[in-house]
Amino acid sequence: MKVTEKISQFIVNASLDEMPVGAMKTAKQAMMDCLGCTLLGAVQPIGRIISEFVIDADARPVASIVGHGKKTAPYLAALANGIMAHAEDYDDVSLGIYGHPSPPLLPAILALGEQYRVSGRRVIEAYITGFEVGSCLGRAINPAHYKRGWHGTATLGTMEAVAASAKLLELDASQTRMALGIAASEVCGIRQNFGTMTKPFHSGNAAKSGVVAAQLAQRGFTADLNIIEAPLGFGHLFQGDEPPDWGKVAHLGKTFEITTEGIAFKPYPSCAETHADIEAILDLMRKHNFPHEDVEGIECVFSDTMDSVMLHLEPKTGMEGKFSAEYCTARALLDKNVGLHDFTDERVNQYEVKKVMQKIRRRIDPGMAMLASTLNIKLKGGCQFSQHVEVPKGWPKNPLSEEELVAKYRDCSRLVLSSSDIDRSVELLKNLEELADITELMNILVKLAASRTH
Amino acid sequence: MKVTEKISQFIVNASLDEMPVGAMKTAKQAMMDCLGCTLLGAVQPIGRIISEFVIDADARPVASIVGHGKKTAPYLAALANGIMAHAEDYDDVSLGIYGHPSPPLLPAILALGEQYRVSGRRVIEAYITGFEVGSCLGRAINPAHYKRGWHGTATLGTMEAVAASAKLLELDASQTRMALGIAASEVCGIRQNFGTMTKPFHSGNAAKSGVVAAQLAQRGFTADLNIIEAPLGFGHLFQGDEPPDWGKVAHLGKTFEITTEGIAFKPYPSCAETHADIEAILDLMRKHNFPHEDVEGIECVFSDTMDSVMLHLEPKTGMEGKFSAEYCTARALLDKNVGLHDFTDERVNQYEVKKVMQKIRRRIDPGMAMLASTLNIKLKGGCQFSQHVEVPKGWPKNPLSEEELVAKYRDCSRLVLSSSDIDRSVELLKNLEELADITELMNILVKLAASRTH
Repeated sequence: MKVTEKISQFIVNASLDEMPVGAMKTAKQAMMDCLGCTLLGAVQPIGRIISEFVIDADARPVASIVGHGKKTAPYLAALANGIMAHAEDYDDVSLGIYGHPSPPLLPAILALGEQYRVSGRRVIEAYITGFEVGSCLGRAINPAHYKRGWHGTATLGTMEAVAASAKLLELDASQTRMALGIAASEVCGIRQNFGTMTKPFHSGNAAKSGVVAAQLAQRGFTADLNIIEAPLGFGHLFQGDEPPDWGKVAHLGKTFEITTEGIAFKPYPSCAETHADIEAILDLMRKHNFPHEDVEGIECVFSDTMDSVMLHLEPKTGMEGKFSAEYCTARALLDKNVGLHDFTDERVNQYEVKKVMQKIRRRIDPGMAMLASTLNIKLKGGCQFSQHVEVPKGWPKNPLSEEELVAKYRDCSRLVLSSSDIDRSVELLKNLEELADITELMNILVKLAASRTH
Repeated sequence: MKVTEKISQFIVNASLDEMPVGAMKTAKQAMMDCLGCTLLGAVQPIGRIISEFVIDADARPVASIVGHGKKTAPYLAALANGIMAHAEDYDDVSLGIYGHPSPPLLPAILALGEQYRVSGRRVIEAYITGFEVGSCLGRAINPAHYKRGWHGTATLGTMEAVAASAKLLELDASQTRMALGIAASEVCGIRQNFGTMTKPFHSGNAAKSGVVAAQLAQRGFTADLNIIEAPLGFGHLFQGDEPPDWGKVAHLGKTFEITTEGIAFKPYPSCAETHADIEAILDLMRKHNFPHEDVEGIECVFSDTMDSVMLHLEPKTGMEGKFSAEYCTARALLDKNVGLHDFTDERVNQYEVKKVMQKIRRRIDPGMAMLASTLNIKLKGGCQFSQHVEVPKGWPKNPLSEEELVAKYRDCSRLVLSSSDIDRSVELLKNLEELADITELMNILVKLAASRTH
């Protein structure tokens, strides 16, 4: 099968008019969620480091750095915004790429979209195009690709970003193939860096790489025309233990993964794999109303993949805490909630939480579904309860409501935007397909975070 | 073995005072060779595309874009200069990284070196430090890494570049480990792109990635501290069919690969794997003095690795011609020489050369040494000759003389620099260790190519 050629044709021919209505709805939700996370990331330490790094280049002001009051070159804006979007690991998730679809994708689109003053319709069209390309490639190489140690947000994210960038730049079929070829030589992102700033760096770097590849192809840069399926190409190098299943690409443009599988939005700002445990403990406490002091032991049962994602059994930093079943479960038990303020170094190293964490054990059950967890709890005096969560809140089969998504956006953006700017941006994002030019939206998002003005 | 920690300590402690004199001599030769290739690349189409792309960002003028009269951010200068250095595939080669050591390494050093106005001694020190780190990692994962399809110039080049950048920025041991961790998540470059502009993109992207990783670590960015040897880290993900041999890292700082194995400099501007065939045919014609019209058939015998590098049996572009045993051998037969002007689309598609190429066949002998070739030639009338080349000219065991290296630099740089600038830059490069500040050198190299001024 001529995979690269087929993907390029899909990108060139993709038209919002022919995409399902449900695709547009989910894409718009994902964009609002991603921008909320980006605004939140803007005021985190990593957001400050990367924006200062990018601003230091003092490049021609073309594309906005969200929450930092400055514009820069599109690929540098994509880098900074892509990192901020994933800074708190509160951003969306999809199973096609085994990772976060929007942080590599949307920043690339907005950076080029701002440069060319495109419409909301074209932003949505590019988003769905990029999402579908990343997802079908993900289906072809995952889960083996992820299990080997690659971070889909970075690797498949680069392919999403280049597909969307090629679409926005209106590259022709040959240029689009070149862009895919260049991007394939920029793909990286390794899971060993989970729990450090380099994890969010992955999505920003992917966004940047997609923009660069498309812009170079536009300028006449060349690459292998069959990079996806060629003997030493993308598929071969990034497969896991099994060869890619190119049949997954055949559906491209016929069915849309964004409607068939959807996108998950997180209610908790921690690794998606911690959510089932958080929910299970909250459910149990609601049902049985026991004080945390009475807990003797907790067993979390999940799959080996879940286990390998939650790298940190004894986290020392806020970042590591996000990838710790032990910390997230203990925090939920202690506070009956897990929120943004819980992932600081100080909170993770609190004496009280560390004591609770010592009561928690993992057990691996390879037969468990991805994301599912069974929590077995034993109380002093002998009481035992068990709670199974198959699909955590936020996943398409158990979705957040539109109101919950807007509330999350408001909560994430309040350290940067005024309440009138929040209202206006919600309005613009809800009606994005009617926006003739995204400049107004970008002019709100670029505003300097209130917490950074003094 | 604590590989990442050991490498970081080597980087932090490396001192030119304790390096072998031979290391400095070879490093200086490599730098002159690389800068000649960069000046040559500046006037090629790819050099024009990438410099215009970088200049378009209009970033704060800190680091020079060679041959283009402009300065930019260090990472953008590293990108452009790294691409130009590898544009013509005329640049140096080393077997540790199974690729080109200088194009990812030197541009990173010069970009940061110019920013901080460092001395020639510190440039040499950083060069050798980066080279040794890339080489020992290469020895640990090659040849399996390369055989799988990774391009060492890009992958190991990124690690060279980050090591040298960390050294130049005087990062401490912890920051250096972070920088290695960030860089590992930027490693890519796939051989399928050989024969296209994306091959030279690899070295520029590696140089850029190294600079970015070191600069982010300097600003407090975090990454996994044991990225090289950790279960899902660099070694695991970039190995080939065999696990890495970390024992190769044990020699770091005790012996120097740059003196034990050296660096090869190319006398022909084509893939190193084509050189044995070029030399064999030139030798045979010198010895037997036959006209090319008398040739009935030519058989080139080399290893399977050589075969897989020379991707293009029927090249259609000048770039592809560089990776074609058939074209290079036919060109040598026709012209008794292979030079810079031979790698244009027009020359590769010449009717006369295509006729000769039809007489050439490959035969694979897995037992042959890397780089070696046996050429069997049959003339009309029945005469048969054979010529074996084990080590082509330019390799440390059959080196170019200092005069030949200077002549190559002069030939490469003459489209950019005036003869007085060539003279002065040769003088500065020959005595690099005495230069208190590299600014004068960079101010020559940045000059706008004469061929671009009108």
